[in-house]
Amino acid sequence: MYNHSVYILEPKSVALIGASDDEAKLGCSILKNLLEGSYKGEIFPVNPKHKEMMGKRCFAAIEDIPETIDLAVIVTPAMTVSGIAEECGKKKVKTLVVISAGFGELGTDEGRAREAELKTIVTKYKMSLVGPNCLGILRPSIGLNASFAATPSKAGSIALISQSGAMAVALLDRSEETDLAFSLVASIGNKAAMNESDFLEICEKDSNTTVIGLYLESIQDGVRFIDTAKRISPKKSIVLLKAGISKRGAKAVSSHTGALAGSSAALDAGCVAAGIHRALSTEEFLGLLSVLNGEPALLSSNIAVITNAGGPGVLATDAAEREKLTLADLDPKTSAALKSALPEAASIGNPVDVLGDAKAKRYAAALEACASDPEVDGIVAILTPQVMTPCEDIARTIIATKKNHRLLPIIPCFMGGPHLQEARALFSKTGLPCFGSPEEAMHAMASLLIKPKHSSVTVNDDCDDDRSSEASAILKGRHGLLQEELTEDLFQLYDLPTPDQAIAHSASEAAEIAGEIGYPVIAKVSSPEILHKTDIGGVRTNLKNERDVKEAYDEILRNCGKAMPSAGIRGILIQQFLPIGSEFIIGGIRDANFGPLVMVGLGGIYTELFRDTCFSLAPVSEEKAYEMLSSLQSWRLLLGMRGKGALDIESLAGAIVNVSAMMHDCPNISEIDLNPVLVSKDRIIVADAKVMLTSSEDI
Amino acid sequence: MYNHSVYILEPKSVALIGASDDEAKLGCSILKNLLEGSYKGEIFPVNPKHKEMMGKRCFAAIEDIPETIDLAVIVTPAMTVSGIAEECGKKKVKTLVVISAGFGELGTDEGRAREAELKTIVTKYKMSLVGPNCLGILRPSIGLNASFAATPSKAGSIALISQSGAMAVALLDRSEETDLAFSLVASIGNKAAMNESDFLEICEKDSNTTVIGLYLESIQDGVRFIDTAKRISPKKSIVLLKAGISKRGAKAVSSHTGALAGSSAALDAGCVAAGIHRALSTEEFLGLLSVLNGEPALLSSNIAVITNAGGPGVLATDAAEREKLTLADLDPKTSAALKSALPEAASIGNPVDVLGDAKAKRYAAALEACASDPEVDGIVAILTPQVMTPCEDIARTIIATKKNHRLLPIIPCFMGGPHLQEARALFSKTGLPCFGSPEEAMHAMASLLIKPKHSSVTVNDDCDDDRSSEASAILKGRHGLLQEELTEDLFQLYDLPTPDQAIAHSASEAAEIAGEIGYPVIAKVSSPEILHKTDIGGVRTNLKNERDVKEAYDEILRNCGKAMPSAGIRGILIQQFLPIGSEFIIGGIRDANFGPLVMVGLGGIYTELFRDTCFSLAPVSEEKAYEMLSSLQSWRLLLGMRGKGALDIESLAGAIVNVSAMMHDCPNISEIDLNPVLVSKDRIIVADAKVMLTSSEDI
Repeated sequence: MYNHSVYILEPKSVALIGASDDEAKLGCSILKNLLEGSYKGEIFPVNPKHKEMMGKRCFAAIEDIPETIDLAVIVTPAMTVSGIAEECGKKKVKTLVVISAGFGELGTDEGRAREAELKTIVTKYKMSLVGPNCLGILRPSIGLNASFAATPSKAGSIALISQSGAMAVALLDRSEETDLAFSLVASIGNKAAMNESDFLEICEKDSNTTVIGLYLESIQDGVRFIDTAKRISPKKSIVLLKAGISKRGAKAVSSHTGALAGSSAALDAGCVAAGIHRALSTEEFLGLLSVLNGEPALLSSNIAVITNAGGPGVLATDAAEREKLTLADLDPKTSAALKSALPEAASIGNPVDVLGDAKAKRYAAALEACASDPEVDGIVAILTPQVMTPCEDIARTIIATKKNHRLLPIIPCFMGGPHLQEARALFSKTGLPCFGSPEEAMHAMASLLIKPKHSSVTVNDDCDDDRSSEASAILKGRHGLLQEELTEDLFQLYDLPTPDQAIAHSASEAAEIAGEIGYPVIAKVSSPEILHKTDIGGVRTNLKNERDVKEAYDEILRNCGKAMPSAGIRGILIQQFLPIGSEFIIGGIRDANFGPLVMVGLGGIYTELFRDTCFSLAPVSEEKAYEMLSSLQSWRLLLGMRGKGALDIESLAGAIVNVSAMMHDCPNISEIDLNPVLVSKDRIIVADAKVMLTSSEDI
Repeated sequence: MYNHSVYILEPKSVALIGASDDEAKLGCSILKNLLEGSYKGEIFPVNPKHKEMMGKRCFAAIEDIPETIDLAVIVTPAMTVSGIAEECGKKKVKTLVVISAGFGELGTDEGRAREAELKTIVTKYKMSLVGPNCLGILRPSIGLNASFAATPSKAGSIALISQSGAMAVALLDRSEETDLAFSLVASIGNKAAMNESDFLEICEKDSNTTVIGLYLESIQDGVRFIDTAKRISPKKSIVLLKAGISKRGAKAVSSHTGALAGSSAALDAGCVAAGIHRALSTEEFLGLLSVLNGEPALLSSNIAVITNAGGPGVLATDAAEREKLTLADLDPKTSAALKSALPEAASIGNPVDVLGDAKAKRYAAALEACASDPEVDGIVAILTPQVMTPCEDIARTIIATKKNHRLLPIIPCFMGGPHLQEARALFSKTGLPCFGSPEEAMHAMASLLIKPKHSSVTVNDDCDDDRSSEASAILKGRHGLLQEELTEDLFQLYDLPTPDQAIAHSASEAAEIAGEIGYPVIAKVSSPEILHKTDIGGVRTNLKNERDVKEAYDEILRNCGKAMPSAGIRGILIQQFLPIGSEFIIGGIRDANFGPLVMVGLGGIYTELFRDTCFSLAPVSEEKAYEMLSSLQSWRLLLGMRGKGALDIESLAGAIVNVSAMMHDCPNISEIDLNPVLVSKDRIIVADAKVMLTSSEDI
């Protein structure tokens, strides 16, 4: 892309093509918004039917404007937009904001063609394009409102990037009631040229922006989005509200991994990898923007609660437990300080109860004592408006304490209504969040917690070229379900241990193979078409002698013949009977948008019941693999529970890394299931596996 | 108790003992509140130091008042309260509201003694008592504010009963901003005499009250509370915000059931049984009060969403999925009506998108079409304030539609800020809830859903007296862990199938018993002191012949000797090797406050990992047992999954009922674990069980 950011963030001149003085038209709302702001740059209305508009000279066409145009806002009917864009190109306009609807969003061929044409033109003239079908952009710091959003916005440091214009309007209007103030508001519409990743980059460069809020309905190029966010998130907080998390669409999946991934595993994993705060509701989105904008990071889970009433203190304690925060044991010095500053009836534990008749002085003492306590990394300060509670004074005290402890998050929770109006206004003016319930305040505090960095997620990138080319050789020209022997070859290449086994083509051959492997054995049908072997009676286990094996051979053939008479059967796989171990699943899937994902979880029948799984974007380092394992509820099973010792975690983590490498090396693998992976004390073994290759049509 | 409700809800006269004209005193705030309201009854300030106060004659003592006193509010120092209560008793005052603190809440002997004395006095004179240590009561419909809450409250139909005065104040203040209006506000303080159950009964009788909101920190007499709520909840909605859900206190538990119960299983089960809406946060509490007050019940999960913007429609769809609501397939008639009423670009699916330029007329058409659709049982109507969106008109349209469809919940979701002020005020005036985000609106809608009545929860109450007395005979004089043989006798009595087994006292006797039972067998240590046998190597399974059994006998003794050398060992239990089945757990525990609870869940090692359990208050009917089972994630396992047929659900449900009966019949059983209960296709068997009896000290 071109260096569009300066022409979006600081345009020196704006043309409005389709300007109007008819109140019913968007061209009128936008012109008013442009003129009513404090924007110092030049504004040029364009409309061939007018000589003058709202006191400004009106131009017949963009080419008639004598000055250079940084930003052209187009709000004419869709069919005219390409022509106008062409004129803008010739005029060397830097950025187009196309408000007009009637493009790809119509879902018609005509609309799509119009959008493609527009894209061609902006590419030809190296113009940036916002939209089409958008609300426009607002840059409050320079008084620029190039949108039809009625709400003027205070200047602040939150950038709001919204795919929906209506959501942007609703959030802007809402922010008037709260403490949100914006560095940039951009409605990105159909994203014909510039998308969320481009806007992330603009915000990266914008020194006004410290927090980026994204409302998205789709993500173009997930890999770029995650990479960009990963780069930015250590410097600026990114909050995402993603609409459309409902059930996965039509695309069929044939693996457990695919079924478990659902529609949001890739995005979830991407957000974790990129350090994006994922909001699950509109309220949470606004709360996160507010708190991340106003508060520093929480360095540990140890916090203190200060309150002037017992009940809310108990609710805060409950909420802290839910949010996995800890009410710190206060230092003896803190306790002494509290004891000397507070009345005898006050509670100097944690929560600190300064009592219902507390004035600002008691709050100040309690805040200062807790803020200076080395055990305390964050404070929630609760106020209920009791008789003669000086709410404003106490708000001022909290703000003052924050100034002395800039690196310590102190979150006010003022519970009530009209009595708190002035106090809330004080917080708002200072850009500080203020919550209305202990649960919201605690949730906000938890969002500030810096996640322990288990892994630097640096993966050995000088990958094994030999292995990679050997894998290519095995998979070359193959499609669909990979057959057993090749799967075994591939797994050997990637150090994934499989049981001793061979395919039998007759009952007596089966017995012969079993004799070589050693009893007991298991027997399984081998067929590329039978995916869930157990379900149709295609597996028999714990076969102890020749007779068992021969009977099993015949029975399996019978069962498969009955259940899937048309399936091609390559024989019966005779396999070493495996040692008892806990069943896990390792999987891989290739997401169309975010690329390869690796999964690990509890295996066997419990996989489907409890979905105790963790997905991560590939590549996965060994440290990341440990992090994935330790995030499972089954981690306790691996550590050893109820008299059982620890299982072979190291080998299991290694297998995750190897599956990640395989997904990386072999782009024609679409899905892998290693299920179950039997994990015992000193080894793991992949008891069953399925490798799905892209079908030839997919390539 | 006495018939206090009339003297609390409609007192004809109020005395304020401790009335004051000193602004720093509560006696002044309360007197002002009493006088400033529109209360028509008589008000008598009492204070020996004044002849007159705020224009009212002031009495030296309550006995000096010439009239009858229905309600006396006491706000004098704690040490004077008993004396005054005694005087009130003599004066035949009906109800005391003791605002004064300095009683049981101090945690001192003196405070507790003072509270006990007060209780004795009110009992002697048959007075009702609210408090001590409370905020007072408000009855807005008669203009009575006998509290020191500064906020006047609108009269409405929500009763707010709060254990914390500060929470009541905060919620009242907050309600000024929202649409909450109250029939009664009572702060119940230390609950020395009247507690939450008494107030539930008052609300039951109060025709002004339709919704009851309880903020509680403790529950006195859980059984009475649940029984009372169960009786009331079909007529009036009850919402509970319970503070103090954190980790269970000191009381040790020795069973899995006890460990899994945690601190809130009994309350959770109680709320389910009683039809109480349990709010998990302050916001949810307020939201539930609002929606249950304003909206009728939702008869099915099928709803429609109407919106003027796509994005919020998608968020609403996401939220509906999370809340287990379904966007109904609209009837062809509805689609036709929508098609004719809306512009071509509108979406006539569900969500119905009336487009950004929609005026009230389009909303009216969409609302009417959806409300008349037999497939639609509820509507969420979303508005974003776009250019020229007539927010108030649309609010009026929604209110009008509701009037034509009184039995259909229609929840408005107006997203934004100041632009919506007037529209919100309209909803508020009509007593209708209005939410600010699709997620909140959908959560509220879900709370209106009538839960399918699986069970009438009528349990055969003519219990089996013979069985009950036989059980008593078995348990008489026993304490601690019940030994195996007696457990078996007890289980036989309650039709709980146990494996064939006998205790061996030598290796050769073990082999003999195994021979009688038939191989394979398992061997387990029998010791009242060893609770977790597997953990210390006290169990060996799948013993196939005499040699195996003899070896296992010796090994178990060795293991136990090493791990718990001091444990008394009664022998080694030789038991039938059980058929393969899925492991479940059934348990029982006696909660000190709520009485006996029954639990069922997935058993074995996964019990602790996933806590897939369901608790219910006993007694449990067969229908209720099915309901419990179907609420488990493991229900799918019981129904049969992955090629396995259904398991013996009927026997499992029967066992739950039998455990419930056992808990009922045997009050000295404190905890029971049946773990694992092996469930196969055609039978269940209790493979291991533990019955804990109350220790002699407990009785």
